Amino acid sequence: MANFTEIIEKIRELPSDLYGKDFLLTWDKSIEELQKILWTAEALKYLRDQNISPRIFDSGLAVSIFRDNSTRTRFSFASAANLLGLQVQDMDEMKSQIAHGETVRETANMISFLTDVIGIRDDMYLGAGHTYMQEFSEALEDGFQNGVLPQRPGIINLQCDLDHPTQSMADLLHLKNYFGSLEALKGKKIAMTWAYSPSYGKPLSVPQGIIGLMTRFGMEVALAFPEGYGLVPEIEEMAKKNAEASGGHFQTFHTMEDAFAEADIVYPKSWAPFSIMEERTQLLKKNDQQGLTDLEKTCLLNNARYKEWECTEERMKLTKKGSALYMHCLPADISRVSCQQGEVQAEVFEKYRIETYKEAGYKPYIIASMIVNSRLSDPTTVLEKIAKGGCLRLSSM
Amino acid sequence: MANFTEIIEKIRELPSDLYGKDFLLTWDKSIEELQKILWTAEALKYLRDQNISPRIFDSGLAVSIFRDNSTRTRFSFASAANLLGLQVQDMDEMKSQIAHGETVRETANMISFLTDVIGIRDDMYLGAGHTYMQEFSEALEDGFQNGVLPQRPGIINLQCDLDHPTQSMADLLHLKNYFGSLEALKGKKIAMTWAYSPSYGKPLSVPQGIIGLMTRFGMEVALAFPEGYGLVPEIEEMAKKNAEASGGHFQTFHTMEDAFAEADIVYPKSWAPFSIMEERTQLLKKNDQQGLTDLEKTCLLNNARYKEWECTEERMKLTKKGSALYMHCLPADISRVSCQQGEVQAEVFEKYRIETYKEAGYKPYIIASMIVNSRLSDPTTVLEKIAKGGCLRLSSM
Amino acid sequence: MANFTEIIEKIRELPSDLYGKDFLLTWDKSIEELQKILWTAEALKYLRDQNISPRIFDSGLAVSIFRDNSTRTRFSFASAANLLGLQVQDMDEMKSQIAHGETVRETANMISFLTDVIGIRDDMYLGAGHTYMQEFSEALEDGFQNGVLPQRPGIINLQCDLDHPTQSMADLLHLKNYFGSLEALKGKKIAMTWAYSPSYGKPLSVPQGIIGLMTRFGMEVALAFPEGYGLVPEIEEMAKKNAEASGGHFQTFHTMEDAFAEADIVYPKSWAPFSIMEERTQLLKKNDQQGLTDLEKTCLLNNARYKEWECTEERMKLTKKGSALYMHCLPADISRVSCQQGEVQAEVFEKYRIETYKEAGYKPYIIASMIVNSRLSDPTTVLEKIAKGGCLRLSSM
Repeated sequence: MANFTEIIEKIRELPSDLYGKDFLLTWDKSIEELQKILWTAEALKYLRDQNISPRIFDSGLAVSIFRDNSTRTRFSFASAANLLGLQVQDMDEMKSQIAHGETVRETANMISFLTDVIGIRDDMYLGAGHTYMQEFSEALEDGFQNGVLPQRPGIINLQCDLDHPTQSMADLLHLKNYFGSLEALKGKKIAMTWAYSPSYGKPLSVPQGIIGLMTRFGMEVALAFPEGYGLVPEIEEMAKKNAEASGGHFQTFHTMEDAFAEADIVYPKSWAPFSIMEERTQLLKKNDQQGLTDLEKTCLLNNARYKEWECTEERMKLTKKGSALYMHCLPADISRVSCQQGEVQAEVFEKYRIETYKEAGYKPYIIASMIVNSRLSDPTTVLEKIAKGGCLRLSSM
Repeated sequence: MANFTEIIEKIRELPSDLYGKDFLLTWDKSIEELQKILWTAEALKYLRDQNISPRIFDSGLAVSIFRDNSTRTRFSFASAANLLGLQVQDMDEMKSQIAHGETVRETANMISFLTDVIGIRDDMYLGAGHTYMQEFSEALEDGFQNGVLPQRPGIINLQCDLDHPTQSMADLLHLKNYFGSLEALKGKKIAMTWAYSPSYGKPLSVPQGIIGLMTRFGMEVALAFPEGYGLVPEIEEMAKKNAEASGGHFQTFHTMEDAFAEADIVYPKSWAPFSIMEERTQLLKKNDQQGLTDLEKTCLLNNARYKEWECTEERMKLTKKGSALYMHCLPADISRVSCQQGEVQAEVFEKYRIETYKEAGYKPYIIASMIVNSRLSDPTTVLEKIAKGGCLRLSSM
Repeated sequence: MANFTEIIEKIRELPSDLYGKDFLLTWDKSIEELQKILWTAEALKYLRDQNISPRIFDSGLAVSIFRDNSTRTRFSFASAANLLGLQVQDMDEMKSQIAHGETVRETANMISFLTDVIGIRDDMYLGAGHTYMQEFSEALEDGFQNGVLPQRPGIINLQCDLDHPTQSMADLLHLKNYFGSLEALKGKKIAMTWAYSPSYGKPLSVPQGIIGLMTRFGMEVALAFPEGYGLVPEIEEMAKKNAEASGGHFQTFHTMEDAFAEADIVYPKSWAPFSIMEERTQLLKKNDQQGLTDLEKTCLLNNARYKEWECTEERMKLTKKGSALYMHCLPADISRVSCQQGEVQAEVFEKYRIETYKEAGYKPYIIASMIVNSRLSDPTTVLEKIAKGGCLRLSSM
C-alpha cells in the first residue's frame, strides 16, 4: 500500500461532489468520486492498521434499515459506524411493510434528529428498493431544508433491487490491491456468470453492480447466464455504454466456457431471472402465498435444468494460465459442503477461500469511506490531523 | 434563542431537587424544576447545534424497558443517551410479562451495576405502569443503599398509564419557542380534544400529560371529548387545581367547537375511554382473548359514532384568527392519507406538518436534560466547561 | 480493598500467558493466571468506583453469540464491553442452529474484521458448546494467520456445557472479598449441592465450574446430589485431582445434610442429571419433539421425588456456627416467592439476598478483566497510565 501521505494526496487531487450526498448507485457517481471512495477507504484502513483511531464523530446515530436479515452487511455497517464513532440503531419496524408517502416522510424525520447516516437494505421487490431510497432521501431533504433536522443524514445503499454498491466497491478495492492498481485492471477480463444454486430468488443486484461498475474501469466484462436469466435490460444497456466510454468491453454469453475463456477473474454466482423477480414482486404485493409457492416450484425446476453451471476445476483451467482469481460476495453455495450441488466445487473454493474473506474485509472500510465523504467537506485535512495527533485505537504503553 | 451564557444563568438560578431522582410525573416536580429541564434541554441543543459535543459520560449504560414497540420514543431515548455518551441496552425480556416482587427487585439490580439511566415505557395496563416504575425505583434505592450499586440509576418515564412527561415537556418546549417564552403562554388557550381514529385502545397518557402540565403555566386548558371518553378522574381534578393555582383555567367540553373557539393551540387526538381501559386491563390480566376481541368490537362500534370528531379546516376557522397552532405527538391518523377517516384532515395536517416534526425534535433534548439533571449535582459548571473546552461533535478543520 | 498501587504490583508479579488467548475453561488456566484475572478485575472496579474511566479502546466491536436468552449474562457482557470502550453487536442468527465446518469458519471471519472480543454462550447441548467454541477459535486463528483479520479477537466463554467461567470467577472474587483473601479460603468448606426446582433441564456448567475452580484454591469442596444426578464424570475426576494438588479436599455425598455439615459456604442449586442431558441432546439433534416432551415428563416426575432438597433454615443451622454464606448464580427458585416449592426457603434467601446481588455484581468486572488480559500484553502499564492521567467516567466540576 502506498504510504499515508501519498494516499492523502490522491484523495486531495480528486474532484468530487460527495459531500452532503447519498450513495445509492455507483453509476450516479463520477470515476473520480469512485476513486476517492477507494482511496479514502485505504486511508482509513491504513490508520486503523497502525492502531490510530480514525474517529471523526464524538456522538451521532447510524441508523440501519434492513428488510431482511443479513449478518455480513449488518456487521460491516456496524463496524464502519463504530470505527468512526457513530452508534448503530436498528429500525426493525420497517421489515414487514412497504411504507409510502407521509409514513416515509414522517419516519425519515423522526429517526434523524441526531442521525448522521442511514444504511438501507431493500432488495426484495424489483422496482421498489431504489424507489424507496429515493423517497426516503427526499424526505430527509425536506426535513433539512425546513429546519427540522440540524444535519442532513446521508443514505448509503446497502443493497437495493438495482445495485449493491458497498459490495461492488469492496470487490473493486480487492481487485485494485490484488492486481496492484486501477490502471492494471484495464483490459483484464472478468467473467460475471450465473451459477446453479439449490435456492431460489437470489437478487440481481450483485451481478448488476459488477457489470455496472467494472465496465467503467476499462475491463473486459463477460456476462454469462442460461437463456431467460437476463438482468434488468437497462443495466445491461448501460454496461455496454460504460465499456465503450472507458475503452473496455462488455459482452453477453450463454455458456460458462465462453465467459471463462482467458478470464483474469471469475465471479460465478446464482441469481433469479429478471422476469421471475418481476412476477414474484407482483405476487408479494398481492401477498399471494399460493402463487409464490407455485412460482418457487417452477423456478426451482427451471433452475435444475442448469445444474452443470458450476465453477469446476475443469472450467478454471480455461482461464488465463488456469489461475484466474475466483470471487464471491459470500456465502457461496459450495458443492458437497454447504449443499449437495452448488455454485462452486469445494476444491476451487478452498483454493480461493482466504481471498474471498479478504474481499469481504474491505466492505467495512468502503462503508466508512462513504460516510466520511458524505459528512466531511474536506476529509483529507481531518484525516491528516488524525494521523498526526490522533488517539490510539487500543491503548498501549 | 437566548445566548448560551444567559441560558446557563437561568439554569443556575432555578432551585431544584432533581439530582439523584427519577422523573416519573411532571406533577411531582416543581415549576422551577420543570423550567430547569427546559433550559437545560435548550443548552444541550445549543451546544450540539454549534458542533460542540455535550458528552458527560465516558462510559455507562442507558437501559430501555419497553412493553410495546415504539420507534419514535426508542429513537429519542437512544439519541439522548448517545449524545451524552451512554450506550443503550434494551431489556426486551420484560415485554410479555408483568413482573413483581423479588423478580423486579432482582432484575432492577442485575441490569444496573454499570447503569446510569433506565427509561421505562409501560402504558398497556391502567393502574400498572406507574406502579411498576415506583416498584422499580424502590428496588434501585434498596440496591444503592445496600452497596450493591455503585451509583443509583435514574428512571425516566417514557410513557406510563398516567403521564407521558417526555412528550408533554417536549410539547411545552415547542410552545415556549413558538410563542417566545413561558410567560407568553399565560392566558393562551389550548384545546386538548378527543378525535376519531379507526384504531382502538390508544393510551390516556398524552391528554393527561397535557392537561396536567399546561394548567401549571397559566394557560386556559379546554378538554373536550364525547360522553364516556373521560380521563382518569383524579387527573382531571388535579388539572382544575393546577389552573386555579397558576392563574390559568381548566374546563371540560363535549364538542370540538367549544374547545376550538378562540383557541391559540389545538391538540386533537384519539384515546380510549377510561372505563374501557379499566375493563381492558382486567381482561389482559386474565388473558381473556375472547373478551378482548369482544371489547374491541364494542369499542370500535362506539368510536364509530363519533366519526365527525375530526380536526377540519372548517373547525380551524373557529380558532384565534383562524390560525391556531396544531399539535400532535405523531403519528397522526390523517384522513385519506393514513386511513379512510381519522383525527385530522390532510389539508390541516399538511399546513402544520413541519411544526409537528419540530415539536417531536425537542424530545431527545428533553430526555437528555432529564438525564443530565438526574446525574449531575451542578450541571451548569459542567456545561460551561464543555462550552469552553469541549470537543467537537463532528471533526472539522 | 488493597490500594491501587498494591493491586498493580500483584498483577505485575503474576506470570501469565493470557495475552492473545481465549478464556474457555478455568482449568485451562494456571493458578497465577486466575489470580491475575481476579486482581485485574479489582483494579478495574477500583478505577470505576473512583470515577476514572478504564477505557482502553477508542473503537472496536464486542460480538455476543447467545443460543438462548440471558438477561444477566447479556448485561454483564454489555457492561464490561462498554466500560472498556467496545460496542456490543449481537449475532442473533446463530440462535436456532448449530453451525459447523465452512459455515463456522466463514462466519467467524465475517463478524471479526474490526472485532476485539467474542462472547459465546452455548450450553444447550451436552458435548456441543465447548466443541463449538474450539471450532470458532480455530477459525479465528486461521483468519488471523492468513492476514484476513488485522487482530485475533479473544473468545470468552459465557457458559458452555462444561464450564461457566465468568460465573465461577465472579463467585471466587466474591469469596475472596467476603473472607478477606484467597489464602483465607484454604480449608474453608463449600457445599455445592443439588436443590429441587419445579423446572427441568438446568445446565451442569455452574456446579461443574464451582467444583473445577474451588478445588484449586485449597478448599474443602463437598458435592451433594440425589442418586442419578451426577455431573460429567471427567470433571468430578478432575476436581478430585485438583484438590489433591492444592491441599484441598473433594468428596461426593447424597444428602444435603452431609454437605452442609460445618460448611462455611453453601451453594444449593438445581441441575439436570448428566444422563438426562445426554438423552436430551440426542433428542434435540433429532428434533424429536415427542421424545423431548416425554423426557421432560419423566424428568419432572423424577425431580419431584427430591422435593425436600431445599435450603432451609433448619439445614442452615448445620453449617459452621449456623451462619455459612449462601451463594447463588441467580435467579434462584425461592419457595413461595418465585414458585410453590423451590431451591431455597424465602427466609434464607432474604437474609443473603444482598450478598447474592453483590456476588453477581463482580461479573462485569471479571469479563472486563478477561478482555483486558486477552488484548493487552502489559495491562499494568496501561492501567497505571489511566489511573494517573485518565479521563473521568462522569464529568464533574
